[in-house]
Amino acid sequence: MSESIIGACIPQVTARTKVSGTAQYAGDLKMAGMLHGKVLRSPYPHARIISIDTSRAKALKGVKAVLTGEDTPTRMWGSARKERRILAAGKVRFAGEEVAAVAAVSDEIARDALELIRVEYEELPTLLDPFSALEPGAIEIHDGTGNIAYETHVDRGNVDKGFDSAAAIYEATYEMPPQYPGYLEPMGTLAAVDGDGRITVWAPTQSVFMSRSRLAEALDVPHSRVRFIQTMTGGAFGAKAVEDANTPIAALLALKTGKPVRLVNTRLEDFLGAPTSMGATVWLRMGVSKEGLIVAKDSMIIGNNGAYTGLASHVIHVTSMRSDSMHRIENVRARGKLVYTNHIPSGAFRGFGGQQMAFPLNSHLTMLAEKIGMDPVEMQLRNAIQTGDTSVHGWVMRSCGLSDCIKQSTEAIGWADKRGSNKSAPGTGAIKRGLGVAAGIHVSANRQLGNWDGSTAVVKMNEDGRVTLLSAESDMGQGATTMMAQVCAHELGIPISHVTVSQPDSDVSPFGIGAIASRVTIIAGNAVRMAASEAREKLFAVVAEKLNVQASELQVENGAIVVKNNREQFVSLPDAVRLHLFRHGGEGVYAKATYDPPTVMADKNYYGDVAPAYSFAAQAVEVEVDTETGQVRLVQSYTSDDCGKALNPMAVHGQTSGATAQSTGWALYENLDFQDGRLMNGNFADYNMPTANSVPTLQSGIIESNDPNGPYGAKGASETAILPGAAAIANAVYDAIGVRINSLPITPEKVLAALREKRNEGANHA
Amino acid sequence: MSESIIGACIPQVTARTKVSGTAQYAGDLKMAGMLHGKVLRSPYPHARIISIDTSRAKALKGVKAVLTGEDTPTRMWGSARKERRILAAGKVRFAGEEVAAVAAVSDEIARDALELIRVEYEELPTLLDPFSALEPGAIEIHDGTGNIAYETHVDRGNVDKGFDSAAAIYEATYEMPPQYPGYLEPMGTLAAVDGDGRITVWAPTQSVFMSRSRLAEALDVPHSRVRFIQTMTGGAFGAKAVEDANTPIAALLALKTGKPVRLVNTRLEDFLGAPTSMGATVWLRMGVSKEGLIVAKDSMIIGNNGAYTGLASHVIHVTSMRSDSMHRIENVRARGKLVYTNHIPSGAFRGFGGQQMAFPLNSHLTMLAEKIGMDPVEMQLRNAIQTGDTSVHGWVMRSCGLSDCIKQSTEAIGWADKRGSNKSAPGTGAIKRGLGVAAGIHVSANRQLGNWDGSTAVVKMNEDGRVTLLSAESDMGQGATTMMAQVCAHELGIPISHVTVSQPDSDVSPFGIGAIASRVTIIAGNAVRMAASEAREKLFAVVAEKLNVQASELQVENGAIVVKNNREQFVSLPDAVRLHLFRHGGEGVYAKATYDPPTVMADKNYYGDVAPAYSFAAQAVEVEVDTETGQVRLVQSYTSDDCGKALNPMAVHGQTSGATAQSTGWALYENLDFQDGRLMNGNFADYNMPTANSVPTLQSGIIESNDPNGPYGAKGASETAILPGAAAIANAVYDAIGVRINSLPITPEKVLAALREKRNEGANHA
Repeated sequence: MSESIIGACIPQVTARTKVSGTAQYAGDLKMAGMLHGKVLRSPYPHARIISIDTSRAKALKGVKAVLTGEDTPTRMWGSARKERRILAAGKVRFAGEEVAAVAAVSDEIARDALELIRVEYEELPTLLDPFSALEPGAIEIHDGTGNIAYETHVDRGNVDKGFDSAAAIYEATYEMPPQYPGYLEPMGTLAAVDGDGRITVWAPTQSVFMSRSRLAEALDVPHSRVRFIQTMTGGAFGAKAVEDANTPIAALLALKTGKPVRLVNTRLEDFLGAPTSMGATVWLRMGVSKEGLIVAKDSMIIGNNGAYTGLASHVIHVTSMRSDSMHRIENVRARGKLVYTNHIPSGAFRGFGGQQMAFPLNSHLTMLAEKIGMDPVEMQLRNAIQTGDTSVHGWVMRSCGLSDCIKQSTEAIGWADKRGSNKSAPGTGAIKRGLGVAAGIHVSANRQLGNWDGSTAVVKMNEDGRVTLLSAESDMGQGATTMMAQVCAHELGIPISHVTVSQPDSDVSPFGIGAIASRVTIIAGNAVRMAASEAREKLFAVVAEKLNVQASELQVENGAIVVKNNREQFVSLPDAVRLHLFRHGGEGVYAKATYDPPTVMADKNYYGDVAPAYSFAAQAVEVEVDTETGQVRLVQSYTSDDCGKALNPMAVHGQTSGATAQSTGWALYENLDFQDGRLMNGNFADYNMPTANSVPTLQSGIIESNDPNGPYGAKGASETAILPGAAAIANAVYDAIGVRINSLPITPEKVLAALREKRNEGANHA
Repeated sequence: MSESIIGACIPQVTARTKVSGTAQYAGDLKMAGMLHGKVLRSPYPHARIISIDTSRAKALKGVKAVLTGEDTPTRMWGSARKERRILAAGKVRFAGEEVAAVAAVSDEIARDALELIRVEYEELPTLLDPFSALEPGAIEIHDGTGNIAYETHVDRGNVDKGFDSAAAIYEATYEMPPQYPGYLEPMGTLAAVDGDGRITVWAPTQSVFMSRSRLAEALDVPHSRVRFIQTMTGGAFGAKAVEDANTPIAALLALKTGKPVRLVNTRLEDFLGAPTSMGATVWLRMGVSKEGLIVAKDSMIIGNNGAYTGLASHVIHVTSMRSDSMHRIENVRARGKLVYTNHIPSGAFRGFGGQQMAFPLNSHLTMLAEKIGMDPVEMQLRNAIQTGDTSVHGWVMRSCGLSDCIKQSTEAIGWADKRGSNKSAPGTGAIKRGLGVAAGIHVSANRQLGNWDGSTAVVKMNEDGRVTLLSAESDMGQGATTMMAQVCAHELGIPISHVTVSQPDSDVSPFGIGAIASRVTIIAGNAVRMAASEAREKLFAVVAEKLNVQASELQVENGAIVVKNNREQFVSLPDAVRLHLFRHGGEGVYAKATYDPPTVMADKNYYGDVAPAYSFAAQAVEVEVDTETGQVRLVQSYTSDDCGKALNPMAVHGQTSGATAQSTGWALYENLDFQDGRLMNGNFADYNMPTANSVPTLQSGIIESNDPNGPYGAKGASETAILPGAAAIANAVYDAIGVRINSLPITPEKVLAALREKRNEGANHA
């Protein structure tokens, strides 16, 4: 077994297919007789549908179906709450909600048909934010809910007593907008129905099995009537799992027409049809001892659920709890309210609610450090949880590189040297520099779906000694395929090019939960390792018999199975595979293994060691603030990621940089602009994601804490790094100009307003 | 477990998809950027290629590639002999051979490009039949071969001594033409290449793994560089395995262009590009005792290999031996020569060479019966092998319904009543009626491919308690999918609609050899039974634990796992599957089983019990011969098939009728018409396959001999019934008009000529 492939920098195995243009995304797919789908969306954020006249649209030549809410199954679907239909029935609850769908022989005809549909609406009062939705007498978006979609409450230790003992207390409220996932490939689906009414969909997804369950529920058919095949996926960030509206509509059109239907979102449609991250307002009160230890944390989270409940109920739960586990803290209280509004439904997004507390918490730590005269880095370090600790929520830290992340990232930007000397930037005196630091914790997997958090992998060897690897774990661009190929190649001692990872397909892939909760590396990595090891043992058995040695005397080396003590004696891998197959009672090598981590379901008080490992990240930044224009510029950023072991450092750095860019966008630029409840900037020209010239060269470092549960020590590395960014930047802005912007994004307008207010306050005090 | 589904008449599970037009055949497939392929074929049966000028074709707008033999890998491919390249290089050896291939953006441009290719040929002497090819001094089609592609020689007992003891001896020579497989769907392929040069092909095939091996060999790449996915297949009859020319050309075009390429044969191209059955001339000499027992059989088979050797070397081997095993015979000798000609390459075809000896042998039996004054039925019965016998070639008859087939079929047409009274038909005296009988033997599987003849099946259960079944065994229309679904449904006590059989795909299907040698029912049937039983045991284990009973106390009943003695205690199948999955250490039900039959590889003298079971068929017919026009009309036909156990009688009757129609075509109508070596009737208007009004209602019967190796006793039922047809008809013609036509097809011209000759002989003798 060669060690070289684990820990080596390996370009993604899908790279050449992507850059050569041979990758087939959902929007590229074609089928004989295929129809084109289009969706009519509500222009109103809240309205009663009085009538829909589809007669003119149906009469248009080439139109094969015009569907409305009346054509959808009456069974509601949804994750935490069953309240959604494939097309709106009776009411629309956000501007952009799907009201009618058309299938036609061409894209143009489908588009023209939309214009022929007449919908009569009766507008209803619109609740654009959670606070207006919570006002007494507010109209109910869903009857009988009081506009509350979900509530969470966690209580540990004695928070009041904790505050009593505090040397300093800080309290503030933070405003965090929803964020659009911003992947390159908008959602698209090709759906086809066979003669028995069985539906096959080809679509990008993070999980063919979760997506299959959701689609079966939405269509009100048994799971087995749906085949879900993942197409090459151009990014997902949480949105391509069970919340998008695209796949159910495409499948319904296919079912109703009996023809294949392709439905691909335009970018605007994707802004409207994909879940955003959960917008949140967080009130946080924290106290620290004079040694800087957090003695109490109390918080209230108001989450903007949007019009329908997807995974936001899980998200707000994460917001309320997860970050507690990165500190040695005993007294915590969190209350969360997830509130219906006439907003695009919110849901899963990279970080999964972690950033909505990481921003307040890390901002607080810097403020409290100031209050007790401590360096924020020291404050972070003193509170950081350590290997061997069990957190306040029962999470067992079998590996923890948090302190190392904090040290590495701050040292990398020269924290100690610059601290204190950085208030005035080079150049004009109007430009100020500041430093900020923040940290985050994430799960690597999460036992939540029916008490199983596992994955099954099958290593299938071909007659040439090479492998096809079957797994349902999705690669959405994050590199799952490369990781699995690497692990398999390592275990079998073959080049990575000899491993082909098959695309997840609910009909043939062994069961796995999919690419959520940063679980793929630790869960699928272990499953693949076990399956490859099983395949190796199968080959060893036949080779041992042939060479008349014990299997324990064999090892894989350079494409062959060799006798350890006599390396002239060997059987090549292709020969070994054929030996296993072509004999009496033989069999193709088809080795299956399942890894279900040794975790526990949380109890009803949310206590329990839910993940086999926990990942950590810290980020240190230096910013420049132009006090004349209010512009904030990220000058330097170093993000350290404790991913246990970097199986592929190139991939980890890529994830870290991507996460940092995404958190920078949230912190400084991105803002869904609604006017009267309608999205005004649903395109990449007006929705400002950070581009290459708005971020510096993003630096990143890897901390290898070697988790005992991880394959070769590895933990998840795709989400954690998004957590500290916003707070690190806000802390740096505060460091630079002495004002704290608690409302994201930190726009020039807000900076200038805050500076003005500060000057006024100073004048008043003077 | 309900018994009802095994043995029930079940429409094919693919039926609705086929008749609703939702089935996707290779010719229906489309891909983004797909190019259209076309092939330029040689107009000459034998010629040297002097030069090929592709410059004008390449210059045509929209043409992306023009390939010739120079662009193909120099490694040769082939089954028994490696002598073929993807496109002709240097020489062409049959009219229709692939000389150049074009890929263009449209079908029309590709077609136009063909016309712009200039090929200069130097014609060579043409060898159209094996006898001219064997003449001394004949030009060698392949250098150094003497035009012999393969020779076979089998010798058992003492043939000369046998003849010495004979009461009657008969000797004759039979001419049998090649037959076009005549499936509805011509061969077609969509091939695509990813950024790493890995090739995926979608094509109809009888075996994704054999086809993958062949394609990898033809392209000179490792197996794992090829993914072979079977598309819905519209018939195959042997031709869609490893001999077609279509798939390698499509794949080469895709490799060279980097684009998806679809290449679909026109019907003429399919006549030229698919293997025909092996045309053969058989000299046969047989002796019988006065009790009618065969005491010696001596034969010489001259097979028309055509221009390249595919599977015909195996075919001629079958012709020379297989039918011996249906008789209690001790002294046999066979010599076979497979001869190169400038004919379309011949190869696998339903019956696989069996019919080329069944026609001579059964004709002989009727003649010898006459010679010793015995009824041909009695003659057949006296020689028929019986359960418990071991044949002259070492085949062990664990089940044998041959005698019953002979009795059932002849009784069904009223043999005993009509015999003797049928010489003059109702109506005009010029129309004569006659009866004929013949029988055949076939293998159910055949241990030949590297000492493994197995199949692996995976039963994958979904959360709704339904099944996806993974197998590499192909359904080409014969009903393999239905059979497998039936077996699985039976074992799990669920409706057949709850089983989805996934399409064979070399990347994900477990290894299996494919639909050849009538092996699928017995081999895959057993594998599926074992895998389903394994799945059941897995479920029983978790249910037993939950219900606190022993697994042995459980049974499957009406969609649930029930306690036998307390049927109120049960767990539904969906709940059981979820119980198996959603628990600590759980796993999706993914049960794999492999069945490799307890057979032996034949030794170097071809002795050995190669199949787990042997199938038998007999056919009795009544014909009408118009002595004025020479027209032969099949009046009644009854074919009895010993398929062990009819898992699905509707499918068995369908196979039997199809086989009978196909043998009728060979016997009476079908004839590839070559002029100067060029095929003149490569279309369904001129190549006369029997239509509904050229056959009577075909009757069939099932003999259930219950083979101990078969799943529920079943053996193969797709090929055997083609064997007796030609001889039964020829025997009936002889019975009707006293002339024997030993050259197929029995055309009016041949009948009239024979009658004329008989009259002349009568006149001469008078």
